[in-house]
Amino acid sequence: MFVDYEKSRGSYIVDADGNRFLDCFAQIASIPVGYNNPRLVKAAQSPEMIRALVNRPALGSFPPTDWLETLRQGILKAAPPGFDQVFTSMNGSDANESAYKAACMWKAQMDRGGPGVDFTPEEIESAMLNKAPGSPNYSILSFKGGFHGRLFGSLATTRSKPIHKLDIPAFDWPCAPFPKLRYPLEDNIRANAEEEARCLEETERLITSFHNPVAAVVVEPIQSEGGDNHASPAFFQCLREMTLRHNVIFIVDEVQTGVGATGKLWAHEHWNLSQAPDIVTFSKKAQAAGYFFRDAALRPNKAYRQFNTWMGDPSKAIIMRAILEEIQQHDLVARTAQTGEYLYAGLASLGQKFPDQILNLRGKDRGTFIAFDSPHRDDVVRRCKQKGVNVGVSGEQAIRLRPMLIFEKQHADILLNTLESVLRDVIARPVAF
Amino acid sequence: MFVDYEKSRGSYIVDADGNRFLDCFAQIASIPVGYNNPRLVKAAQSPEMIRALVNRPALGSFPPTDWLETLRQGILKAAPPGFDQVFTSMNGSDANESAYKAACMWKAQMDRGGPGVDFTPEEIESAMLNKAPGSPNYSILSFKGGFHGRLFGSLATTRSKPIHKLDIPAFDWPCAPFPKLRYPLEDNIRANAEEEARCLEETERLITSFHNPVAAVVVEPIQSEGGDNHASPAFFQCLREMTLRHNVIFIVDEVQTGVGATGKLWAHEHWNLSQAPDIVTFSKKAQAAGYFFRDAALRPNKAYRQFNTWMGDPSKAIIMRAILEEIQQHDLVARTAQTGEYLYAGLASLGQKFPDQILNLRGKDRGTFIAFDSPHRDDVVRRCKQKGVNVGVSGEQAIRLRPMLIFEKQHADILLNTLESVLRDVIARPVAF
Repeated sequence: MFVDYEKSRGSYIVDADGNRFLDCFAQIASIPVGYNNPRLVKAAQSPEMIRALVNRPALGSFPPTDWLETLRQGILKAAPPGFDQVFTSMNGSDANESAYKAACMWKAQMDRGGPGVDFTPEEIESAMLNKAPGSPNYSILSFKGGFHGRLFGSLATTRSKPIHKLDIPAFDWPCAPFPKLRYPLEDNIRANAEEEARCLEETERLITSFHNPVAAVVVEPIQSEGGDNHASPAFFQCLREMTLRHNVIFIVDEVQTGVGATGKLWAHEHWNLSQAPDIVTFSKKAQAAGYFFRDAALRPNKAYRQFNTWMGDPSKAIIMRAILEEIQQHDLVARTAQTGEYLYAGLASLGQKFPDQILNLRGKDRGTFIAFDSPHRDDVVRRCKQKGVNVGVSGEQAIRLRPMLIFEKQHADILLNTLESVLRDVIARPVAF
Repeated sequence: MFVDYEKSRGSYIVDADGNRFLDCFAQIASIPVGYNNPRLVKAAQSPEMIRALVNRPALGSFPPTDWLETLRQGILKAAPPGFDQVFTSMNGSDANESAYKAACMWKAQMDRGGPGVDFTPEEIESAMLNKAPGSPNYSILSFKGGFHGRLFGSLATTRSKPIHKLDIPAFDWPCAPFPKLRYPLEDNIRANAEEEARCLEETERLITSFHNPVAAVVVEPIQSEGGDNHASPAFFQCLREMTLRHNVIFIVDEVQTGVGATGKLWAHEHWNLSQAPDIVTFSKKAQAAGYFFRDAALRPNKAYRQFNTWMGDPSKAIIMRAILEEIQQHDLVARTAQTGEYLYAGLASLGQKFPDQILNLRGKDRGTFIAFDSPHRDDVVRRCKQKGVNVGVSGEQAIRLRPMLIFEKQHADILLNTLESVLRDVIARPVAF
């Protein structure tokens, strides 16, 4: 679908033929504060932005004089509680892979006896041949259904769909089961607790016994591409404790969940962890990308270990700063929590009217980060579009809602009314032409 | 070094203290037409740019109505002779990795019996476990001294320096020797031809016998990070023939060599190949990134195989279009060829005055893409900076010159005079304080 971005406004996109859609997918969950947001337009017109675009710096060597201030007023202001350091990159895949690299370097330093112990000649020689010990057989543990990107390292941790992975060489890394919760949650408390315990047990078995030593565990707070799969805060608390117990880096991939849509700035804030994650990665709605970390031990012990030409992009950092200002001024995270509550209640009520059409509704108390399974999913999505509402899909049969942070009750009403009308049509005539 | 990009102009950067430097490194070879170039400023101020910045699209699903035109007037206009298709990405590492993925998918389709043959259930199941046959043990062959990026797949092909690779897991992929030419070339014709023949022979041995089947060969026209290592057009012609003979995708990594600095828009145009490469990757001076290809067989046979959220960035495509207009209007590639000739002659002449200080001068007839070895390299670089000239380094002892395309004879004179004065100082007092 070709989009006329000049005519698109707020939560509405306009296609090449002038048709207007309420956008509940928002560029695969990557537009935070609406099309043609005036504050972002102002940031885009600023002399600072123009300089950033025409003089793109190699940030690792020649940062602009105001770079630290840009970080402090922007990206670092969004740092999750307890975090004060950031490595900037350019998209979710390279944010995750850079985090994996930081974890591998950290583990190697530890295995070697500390950051002060130098590389051995054997390590130096073997690294150039892609062989151990210089290129160690460390692994990154991820979860079945997880999605962490499409480049070779991130794809090796992605376990969402075969079409993402087929024909591409992959590392021999472990994949733990992710809980398959039954809904409604309140009717399946015991079964779900058992399911989470089973997954945790297998995860611990893999961490302690997988033949390629685990340097890090990476997990999404809500598995997004994989079908909007949730787990309880208790599950993540246990997982966090487990990584501490076994001295493994805990990476939370907030590329899709981050920046407010769950009703907190970062979804992992819902967990009330006793100790924050080691690394939190971000991209999408941040527009900038990278990872936050807390412990200086995750900084490599020598220069040029984590390095590349651009190391991020000031133009995106400027946009992210404006996004954060907009969020703060309009209290958009709290409002998203409220709108999400309203939308979830509306969907729950629709689910009572159409018990065979809205299954496994999930995302309660997670802002507008809501999904449900739909037996006629693709048909429902097509009909919604015909009626002016754009929604996303994920996994095998989920409809995923990823509206922006400016999505309000009036928008929720449009979505709910459209969905109700579509479901009536689907029941009356199951295939749309 | 913090840079005041507001005060920087053309070939000159100004640091935070107001010191002015002739910039012969240009943000690690990534600034093409000068700081604060007026045409780029105009492009950055355009309504199109503002829309691109504030409404960043998921290009694979919701491209702007003018996206095809932006590509045709911009990135595709730069396509090397014979190329008419492009996959856009965000930086050199992901451009290369996406090219590797295209090669692996192509090979798997071929091995499977053609793009019409579907995946087997065994392939689908094993891919989710990171195991063959779904995740095949294909390999990408690269060359000793090559640099292709820092993410897990690209880093596995990077063979420049241990510090780039240590502690990071790597694929078991083959590394062929790259010719070590002796200089001056005209005095070492026979030895160099033998050296190239030796490297080609070993490359062919690896392609035909390496235990992980080779899907693609990736090579830089001039190994840049690895120390500015050159090979003759005849070497690359033989390599191209070899990949055709063995049905292996030939990827030319022009991330650093591309966009004019060698005196042609793409460095591989110097080779006069009988058949163009299969894939040419680009980034850096293009500001946009991605890969060009010619054969529709390199498009995956199903949707969403080569896919990600953003799939490039219109704001960079707009900048690249302006860069190309600037290059065309001022004939900057041809002028770079001329300036390069002048600079090379000047360095050759300096080399006669300082035969122990300027060794293995290389880059004749390759525009301003010139380097030489310097026994007191780091001292020379520091002293040049003190005298207002910023140059780069590569490999163990090379000084690499990567001026912009607006570098002219007057700039070459400044560089040559500064270097002469520095070399006199170095000889008089070998360590600078």
